[in-house]
Amino acid sequence: MLNIRIEKTKDPKVLPGKDNPLKFGTIFTDHMFIMNYETGKGWYDPRVIPYQPLNLEPSAMVFHYGQEMFEGLKAYKTDDGRTLLFRPDKNIERANRTNRRICIPEIPEEDFLQAIKTVVKVDEAWIPTKEGTSLYIRPFIIATDPYLGVRPSDRYLFIIILSPVGAYYPEGLNPVKIWIEDEYVRAVKGGIGEAKTGANYVASMKSQVKAHDEGYSQVLWLDGVHRKYIEEVGAMNIFFKINGTVLTPELNGSILPGVTRDSVLALCREWGLPTEERKISIDEIKAAHENGTLEEVWGTGTAAVISPVGQLRWENHIMQVQDGGIGPISQKLYDTITGIQLGRLEDIHNWTVEV
Amino acid sequence: MLNIRIEKTKDPKVLPGKDNPLKFGTIFTDHMFIMNYETGKGWYDPRVIPYQPLNLEPSAMVFHYGQEMFEGLKAYKTDDGRTLLFRPDKNIERANRTNRRICIPEIPEEDFLQAIKTVVKVDEAWIPTKEGTSLYIRPFIIATDPYLGVRPSDRYLFIIILSPVGAYYPEGLNPVKIWIEDEYVRAVKGGIGEAKTGANYVASMKSQVKAHDEGYSQVLWLDGVHRKYIEEVGAMNIFFKINGTVLTPELNGSILPGVTRDSVLALCREWGLPTEERKISIDEIKAAHENGTLEEVWGTGTAAVISPVGQLRWENHIMQVQDGGIGPISQKLYDTITGIQLGRLEDIHNWTVEV
Ligand SMILES: Cc1ncc(COP(=O)(O)O)c(C=O)c1O
Ligand SMILES: Cc1ncc(COP(=O)(O)O)c(C=O)c1O
Repeated sequence: MLNIRIEKTKDPKVLPGKDNPLKFGTIFTDHMFIMNYETGKGWYDPRVIPYQPLNLEPSAMVFHYGQEMFEGLKAYKTDDGRTLLFRPDKNIERANRTNRRICIPEIPEEDFLQAIKTVVKVDEAWIPTKEGTSLYIRPFIIATDPYLGVRPSDRYLFIIILSPVGAYYPEGLNPVKIWIEDEYVRAVKGGIGEAKTGANYVASMKSQVKAHDEGYSQVLWLDGVHRKYIEEVGAMNIFFKINGTVLTPELNGSILPGVTRDSVLALCREWGLPTEERKISIDEIKAAHENGTLEEVWGTGTAAVISPVGQLRWENHIMQVQDGGIGPISQKLYDTITGIQLGRLEDIHNWTVEV
Repeated sequence: MLNIRIEKTKDPKVLPGKDNPLKFGTIFTDHMFIMNYETGKGWYDPRVIPYQPLNLEPSAMVFHYGQEMFEGLKAYKTDDGRTLLFRPDKNIERANRTNRRICIPEIPEEDFLQAIKTVVKVDEAWIPTKEGTSLYIRPFIIATDPYLGVRPSDRYLFIIILSPVGAYYPEGLNPVKIWIEDEYVRAVKGGIGEAKTGANYVASMKSQVKAHDEGYSQVLWLDGVHRKYIEEVGAMNIFFKINGTVLTPELNGSILPGVTRDSVLALCREWGLPTEERKISIDEIKAAHENGTLEEVWGTGTAAVISPVGQLRWENHIMQVQDGGIGPISQKLYDTITGIQLGRLEDIHNWTVEV
């Protein structure tokens, strides 16, 4: 149990108005959670303080050697005014898995959850209520040792910032076009692809820019060894429905184990849909498209929850899915998960946690 | 030509004493160079200011998505009091190659060199003069947009900090023991292994810790696809002398093109040694060790210049090299390169640049 000191801002910002589109990740609330770490001392001085800049030495290791982890989850306001988190235990578990992989000290799970709840509570008034909106929660840890050698840092900051975000698709669910990357590689077995750390995102930028320039909104990665097995999208896991079966790449060490991915698998199984987590080659997808059995494709991630995929492009092959529209399973998954998140559907899995 | 504003510190630190061991990367000089970038505006406001902390928003992209690059080079004081940089053009060229790979705007080469020279000049008194010491120069760029979406930043800081460093091996050249990693992977073809960016270093930490615990000072990486071709050491390129021929892995996109590597190849060729840049498998090294033709192994890098390797360990095979001592080519390379860096040997390649 942390003893969290709370220092409220004396200069609160004006809350964004009801019609503010709340562009993802641009507006931040009045407060942040912060806690220090030092070898020998452990995590110490947990506090909620006014949202403010960080003061770091130019030699701080995070600027040079990328020792940083982050997480992303959301808080939702229910119709009856409660605040719900969606499966925070999964994010916390994953955070510590990332920490272990990149030599950052772990944070006890109950302390992590307490920190999230405390700062969300302080800025509860910031949780937007319009359809499709939520409060995005960004916990992250950075290495702060003022030292230019390559080794794990002896000092860290654990920080949680909050950002009210609008509906990912303001006009409702909207199919995306996806570029399948055949030149660049995001991550490889034995590497850090399954960790949520900046390294995997900087590695994706060049390809992302190329895809954008070609009119595609996201990149789908192939594996780094054979360059033919499907991995994941920039910030989503990927699902295919082929001939009645729901397929998604297995957790192979180089993709992120998504919380939404896990929820989607659970729901599909409950609904009696056959599901398979396994290696899926791009050739299999192409063949399914050609013989008309590629029924649906969707991405899963905290930001958009479900992103129906209307088109896939691999080299010169353009594969249209569901005539570029939204498939019935994608829609049902979106409605069910957001229904649970907003407390409108019964939460039989105990996925939501009240703040 | 940059118009660099210079603001001198009013509170200079005490220079480290002659007997200070100057542990690598722990002491910083009185000043730093800094310059901003903004899309549409370009690089602006170049300045030398007192060494000071950076003030960054917690949402600054560098903390989340690892968009950061760095370089490392050295300035040396000659016996007659001149200040020499060693091949700064190579570092600057590599910096811009890194920038292109990770979507950071480039810096004109002449501006980059002017920035280095200017800040080194201001803190010239900090260049140590004792045998084996130098001034380590660390240029780096970080993404500062206060934005939580994954895309190249629109704002950056380019910073140069300086650190007086002691002899890497205080008692003279000293052979190191190297652990050949067979579980983790640092980088892969198609990825960002050839860029000098934090991602590659955070990816190495877990393996580095394991090697240290086993009594090895550095890790030698194998390729991520076949897991059998030699790549490079944590912060050095690697050379083998087998049966009279000097071998080093080719620049394959997943290893850093080292400046010292390039200098070593040039010198070996001048000396009439056969050299080969090509794929080298771990089996080839093991076979050479077994049949007695593995004559020398050394690492090359700015920090240590030449690091003779006395022992390699791959799985259960412990390979002793030069009876654990220093080979004649390693010694000659070290003497020649440091001789040129210190202005004691004729610089027929025009490798040094006077400040
Ligand atoms: C690389 C990557 N894959 C997948 C996901 C989806 O994970 P989750 O469902 O936990 O948001 C994300 C986003 O968090 C991601 O960044
Ligand atoms: C990964 C890596 N390889 C090789 C090197 C050696 O390069 P250089 O000789 O330019 O210092 C370094 C250090 O700079 C490095 O970090």
